[in-house]
Amino acid sequence: MSTQPARGTRDFLPDDVRRREHVVRIVRDVYERYGFEPLETPAFENIEMLLGKYGDEGNKLIFKILRRGEHEVTGEADLALRYDLTVPLARVVAQYQNALPKFFKRYQIQPVWRADRPARGRFREFYQCDIDAVGSTSLVVEAELLGAVSEVLARLGFDDFRVRLNHRQLLTALLERAGVGEKMHGDALVALDKLDRIGQDGVEEEFTRRGISSEAAMTLVDVLRRTAAGSEADPGATERGGEHNKRVAGELEGFVGAQQAGVDAVLALTTIVNLTEGTPAAGRIRIDPSLARGLSYYTGAIMEIAVPDLAGSLGGGGRYDNLVGMFLGREVPACGFSLGLERIIVVMTERAMFPETIAGGGVDVMVTLWNEGSRGEAIALAGELRRGGLRVDVYPEPDRLGRQFKYASSRNVPFVTILGDDERAQGNVSIKDLQSGDQASVPRGEAVTYLHGRRR
Amino acid sequence: MSTQPARGTRDFLPDDVRRREHVVRIVRDVYERYGFEPLETPAFENIEMLLGKYGDEGNKLIFKILRRGEHEVTGEADLALRYDLTVPLARVVAQYQNALPKFFKRYQIQPVWRADRPARGRFREFYQCDIDAVGSTSLVVEAELLGAVSEVLARLGFDDFRVRLNHRQLLTALLERAGVGEKMHGDALVALDKLDRIGQDGVEEEFTRRGISSEAAMTLVDVLRRTAAGSEADPGATERGGEHNKRVAGELEGFVGAQQAGVDAVLALTTIVNLTEGTPAAGRIRIDPSLARGLSYYTGAIMEIAVPDLAGSLGGGGRYDNLVGMFLGREVPACGFSLGLERIIVVMTERAMFPETIAGGGVDVMVTLWNEGSRGEAIALAGELRRGGLRVDVYPEPDRLGRQFKYASSRNVPFVTILGDDERAQGNVSIKDLQSGDQASVPRGEAVTYLHGRRR
Repeated sequence: MSTQPARGTRDFLPDDVRRREHVVRIVRDVYERYGFEPLETPAFENIEMLLGKYGDEGNKLIFKILRRGEHEVTGEADLALRYDLTVPLARVVAQYQNALPKFFKRYQIQPVWRADRPARGRFREFYQCDIDAVGSTSLVVEAELLGAVSEVLARLGFDDFRVRLNHRQLLTALLERAGVGEKMHGDALVALDKLDRIGQDGVEEEFTRRGISSEAAMTLVDVLRRTAAGSEADPGATERGGEHNKRVAGELEGFVGAQQAGVDAVLALTTIVNLTEGTPAAGRIRIDPSLARGLSYYTGAIMEIAVPDLAGSLGGGGRYDNLVGMFLGREVPACGFSLGLERIIVVMTERAMFPETIAGGGVDVMVTLWNEGSRGEAIALAGELRRGGLRVDVYPEPDRLGRQFKYASSRNVPFVTILGDDERAQGNVSIKDLQSGDQASVPRGEAVTYLHGRRR
Repeated sequence: MSTQPARGTRDFLPDDVRRREHVVRIVRDVYERYGFEPLETPAFENIEMLLGKYGDEGNKLIFKILRRGEHEVTGEADLALRYDLTVPLARVVAQYQNALPKFFKRYQIQPVWRADRPARGRFREFYQCDIDAVGSTSLVVEAELLGAVSEVLARLGFDDFRVRLNHRQLLTALLERAGVGEKMHGDALVALDKLDRIGQDGVEEEFTRRGISSEAAMTLVDVLRRTAAGSEADPGATERGGEHNKRVAGELEGFVGAQQAGVDAVLALTTIVNLTEGTPAAGRIRIDPSLARGLSYYTGAIMEIAVPDLAGSLGGGGRYDNLVGMFLGREVPACGFSLGLERIIVVMTERAMFPETIAGGGVDVMVTLWNEGSRGEAIALAGELRRGGLRVDVYPEPDRLGRQFKYASSRNVPFVTILGDDERAQGNVSIKDLQSGDQASVPRGEAVTYLHGRRR
């Protein structure tokens, strides 16, 4: 029998878990500082809750669980694995509406499951880190979200990320002004989204193939070209970001003219940029009318975070005022952002951004076993060191000291203690630094202080 | 459509998550101090991996996932949700045997799923907190495990737990010496396990019904009575535990006589007790030959932790040297312990053992919004407070101050800031303590220090 994990899933060995925890700890800490509170929902939902929420393609990717008991033979499924964290949020908002605050700000860091074809960086089980603020239409929400996710990335050590910012209503206004009929807006956005890859000619071709005039394509490509973010050497520079955003807002104002929704959208974008000036998102944001984001449920600002060495984004989000209220039968304003934990870890690994102490970093000191008769004393010494805050392993079997040292070295444990007859007679303990080979005999009561002082 | 979570599962709202996190944080911290390292495995496994591992009853309780794609119509299942954390451990030990250390000590805190009939305290999704040490037969392992789980409970605030300790080979020896045939050992243990509930007469009845002599029942009940732990007023007292264990070991030695496996088992039990003397398990352990534990895979020491106000245990474990190697085709010694997170939380909730700050404790201070024009300054002030380590919410909409205060109070936020025209002119910020009603105007640069000094 194969002992590999199921297709598209992964086992996380200790170093892997520590890397993931390093990221998750920072994500949680930052989100909590921004006033978001934790929510967790079950791994599976009643199947009706998920079917029909993610389009035809999504329906096919939902993992379905067989009804239990005598019904099992029918092959009927009554449960399904969580596909994202947004539908569970909508369910929670409906179910606990009276218990939740008027402005419900939650974060949720949990796995989701999709029966996708596994590929490099695409898994069937992966974590999402979502923050959403439910209950307010204020642009303070967008600004705070952007501040929070920017602070997460900065604290993880990213210094070259960019926040692309656009607005659903601006996209609509641009398409309208270019003469694209409302029914063709979706098709046009799909084609424009490929501009980078297929170029102006490709977009024109796709437009005409879908029955949209090539003039509209030319007009739109032209405005997108004029408003594209340059490839400045220093993407974090505030002035450059500020200059870009001012210029682009001006171009867009000119283009949308008197189309009121478009005017409002440009004002919303510049307001969001201004509101983030006192946050870690300052200088990171580029108003970018070429950002479309696939999901059709956005109603206002849309945003995405990119780094130069990753195709695709580290995360994205936006305002979606029609979705969270789906089970309540009324509109509930909401704005959210989802960070892709797996992608963040991929980039951090490639860039060697994890602290050195993570690899094999589970144990600070190993207590060696002198002989069978000293087992109790070894365990007691371990207890003293643990009370001093150290992570301590005890070698469980009497064995040659050399083998015990070698075992500790192979696990990257930096120190071992030796409690031999001499040390016991003197009330001392010997501590060996396995990297330098240095060994010192210290009074047992001072071992904790000694080790803390020499810890990596 | 119902917006309740699926049957037998629960949503965890912010206070619930904080309570769970409080426990998990301590569990992880203690386990890491004992040199255990984190492992995580996928939520589902290939179905062959789980079927047949948990007996007929277990097989029925496994949640099965429909094969995806065109095969879906056949109703065939090819994946199944994790049922426990032990089979995944065995799979991981086989799959990564060359990458794992000789003594692999891992902890794993993840949900498992069982299609059980939901009942009070019994869920279809629940967390297990497992520690297992793989690769050594040394009793140091048992002692360290007991030290670790005892330290977890002590740090959580439990001061009245007892560790019941028994040994599989001792049970065998007792049954042999009482004249129970080997084939009837399982049946006899099931009956003896009910002694507390059905009394001596009931056990005798069950024995004779199963074809075991009532003399055997009388003999066994007698030895269990003589070795039962008294209900001392102070269950933590070292001497009393020590006296009990000495007396019981003596009784058992007398009873098993020359049966060598029994003699070895009694010696193992007293050795484990002695080895834990320098650990937080000291004084907690009671050798208890009436402890059977259902699982048939134990081969050595078995243990369980109980508190007076809970029927059943807070966790249990033991040595099982034949299971982890099942995919390797050779014996791999292992000893483990599983803490029941859900039960720990039930008891801690009933006893009000959670820190007061958990309830509604997600936000330290709320920045009120003076008017629409001061949105940017409110966000910037929030940023200053966050950089000072505080968890800060910003009221997103201009609203009457009284309503903003009321909102903060309703969420248990202890402080609000006010940044009005006067405060801005003076470079100050007003800080209101919502519990006492006190309000003070402090220089903006000192707000963080002021708030830290007055935090609950």
